[in-house]
Amino acid sequence: MVVAKLWTMVRHFEGAPKPEDFKLENKELPPLKDGELLLESEFLSVDPYIRPYSKEKKEGDIILGSQVARVVESKNSAFPVGGYYVAYAGWATHFISDGKGLDALPSNWPDNLPRSLALGAVGMPGVTAYYGLLEICKPKEGEVVLVNAAAGAVGSLVGQIAKIKGCKVVGSAGSDEKLTFLKEIGFDEAFNYKTASSLAEALKNASPEGYDCYFDNVGGKFSDATLQQMKDFGRITVCGAISQYNDAVPPTGPYIQPYILFKQLLVQGFLVWTWKNRYTEAQKQLLQWIAEGKLKYHEHITSGFENMPAGFIGMLKGENIGKAIIKV
Amino acid sequence: MVVAKLWTMVRHFEGAPKPEDFKLENKELPPLKDGELLLESEFLSVDPYIRPYSKEKKEGDIILGSQVARVVESKNSAFPVGGYYVAYAGWATHFISDGKGLDALPSNWPDNLPRSLALGAVGMPGVTAYYGLLEICKPKEGEVVLVNAAAGAVGSLVGQIAKIKGCKVVGSAGSDEKLTFLKEIGFDEAFNYKTASSLAEALKNASPEGYDCYFDNVGGKFSDATLQQMKDFGRITVCGAISQYNDAVPPTGPYIQPYILFKQLLVQGFLVWTWKNRYTEAQKQLLQWIAEGKLKYHEHITSGFENMPAGFIGMLKGENIGKAIIKV
Repeated sequence: MVVAKLWTMVRHFEGAPKPEDFKLENKELPPLKDGELLLESEFLSVDPYIRPYSKEKKEGDIILGSQVARVVESKNSAFPVGGYYVAYAGWATHFISDGKGLDALPSNWPDNLPRSLALGAVGMPGVTAYYGLLEICKPKEGEVVLVNAAAGAVGSLVGQIAKIKGCKVVGSAGSDEKLTFLKEIGFDEAFNYKTASSLAEALKNASPEGYDCYFDNVGGKFSDATLQQMKDFGRITVCGAISQYNDAVPPTGPYIQPYILFKQLLVQGFLVWTWKNRYTEAQKQLLQWIAEGKLKYHEHITSGFENMPAGFIGMLKGENIGKAIIKV
Repeated sequence: MVVAKLWTMVRHFEGAPKPEDFKLENKELPPLKDGELLLESEFLSVDPYIRPYSKEKKEGDIILGSQVARVVESKNSAFPVGGYYVAYAGWATHFISDGKGLDALPSNWPDNLPRSLALGAVGMPGVTAYYGLLEICKPKEGEVVLVNAAAGAVGSLVGQIAKIKGCKVVGSAGSDEKLTFLKEIGFDEAFNYKTASSLAEALKNASPEGYDCYFDNVGGKFSDATLQQMKDFGRITVCGAISQYNDAVPPTGPYIQPYILFKQLLVQGFLVWTWKNRYTEAQKQLLQWIAEGKLKYHEHITSGFENMPAGFIGMLKGENIGKAIIKV
């Protein structure tokens, strides 16, 4: 008999998630029925989207999230023991599946790459950066691309993909260590939004001519400042609003419609699930860029399933550089 | 010798434009040089854009705007006496031109249509409605289209074009007389935003399923309410922000980025000047729809050049149904 460990939600988050909002439970799993398989978690992913989407969960529910898991027992010939899959199974060390919704790791997965990348540069964040930048911002060679939360899982890839496409890339991040990281992975300019005396000045200094593309993971006051620096016909991917996820009352700011109007901006929301049927295409390109050394990945690994809430809380605070991963 | 009358700006507008902000002046025009022509105004246009773009003018400058004018004297064989042109010559009864920037009325102009339509349904507002709706919102048959300032020059055309394309059309306007007008020209639903107890309720009642397309002439709180009623993958044309044009300090509201993100909306700013090289194509279609009786036009005509400020101020207050025109 297998006992799974899982993290459940004691109460809905109010403001920033706190350790006491999470409860570690043991759950005995029943024997497998025909067609079922048992999977064991190897890596789990903590991502910003978990915060807003947790509103849709009930108290006592397992915390939502994805993981890379290995088949350890199977009564389904399509999923033999030893196979690795990405699964949206929540925060659990073990779970039973009928195979639906399991995504096999790309078949050309190189031996020298950690499978955790299937949760990062070659997974959801990678595909997000790829389509969010290339299909909405559509940056042209020589254009200026701005990304915030630039040292995060998505932002660090957005900047590198924009460089591959021949753009000038500006990133914003919240520590000097992160700025160093951004320069290492090829960003042209980077500034610390926490210590800048004025966001407007920092944006102007980094690109006096303004910005053609803005990949927005943050929203709020950062976007207010950026809208003033956008060039006419600029494109904005709204991919996240992490500055607002903990706010109970929606924060207010100047209406952005006049900027959209008079600069003829295009602003579009991006959720990666919409691109599900084009995942493989993006993953193939991302793997190739990594193999060619054009795309560097960085992971911030927290060890121990029992440390998942700490990893999640730390990620929301911006403690990670690159993709935040929990290693069981 | 010809004496032109013209309206100049005494001071930059503060809040709503007031009669004392305008000054009527006489100006002697010099004799024509070779290559020049003298034009006389027949109809002048007062449009919302004049309010924000006046910020770029200096005190003492002529008020900006367009008109339909007739060539009354010519030393330029390309522009014979008697020809009619749309000109961005400002608020003047007469002006001298070298022919640059003059747009001839469409060559297939029907005898039974007033030339003032070149400032309305077949002019800038018509082209605005045509491309703003069809190229940004891209409504599909059976979808629900919302337009505000719906009884205005642009809004009344947006709704009718959406009906031609097989959509359900909802309009918002500021008087019961306007609602009657909207029903007459084929809107499926119309509500009075001034008397509605709740914009959210009015929007829900008019289309319980929500909105696929939103053609926004107004901005502000109307847009706040509408964003909550947009369907996933909705499209928004930001064509105007008349609710804010008189505000010295930019008004604030809840950030709209979370709606854009989680509903995956596309929001794009539209300025008709960008479509200059495709004007003729739109004008041809608009004229054809008018000839076929599919597109109805309505004009709100103020007589007398001396009444231009009153016509402009009234239009900004929403006193007009259809296109606000000044007849000299």
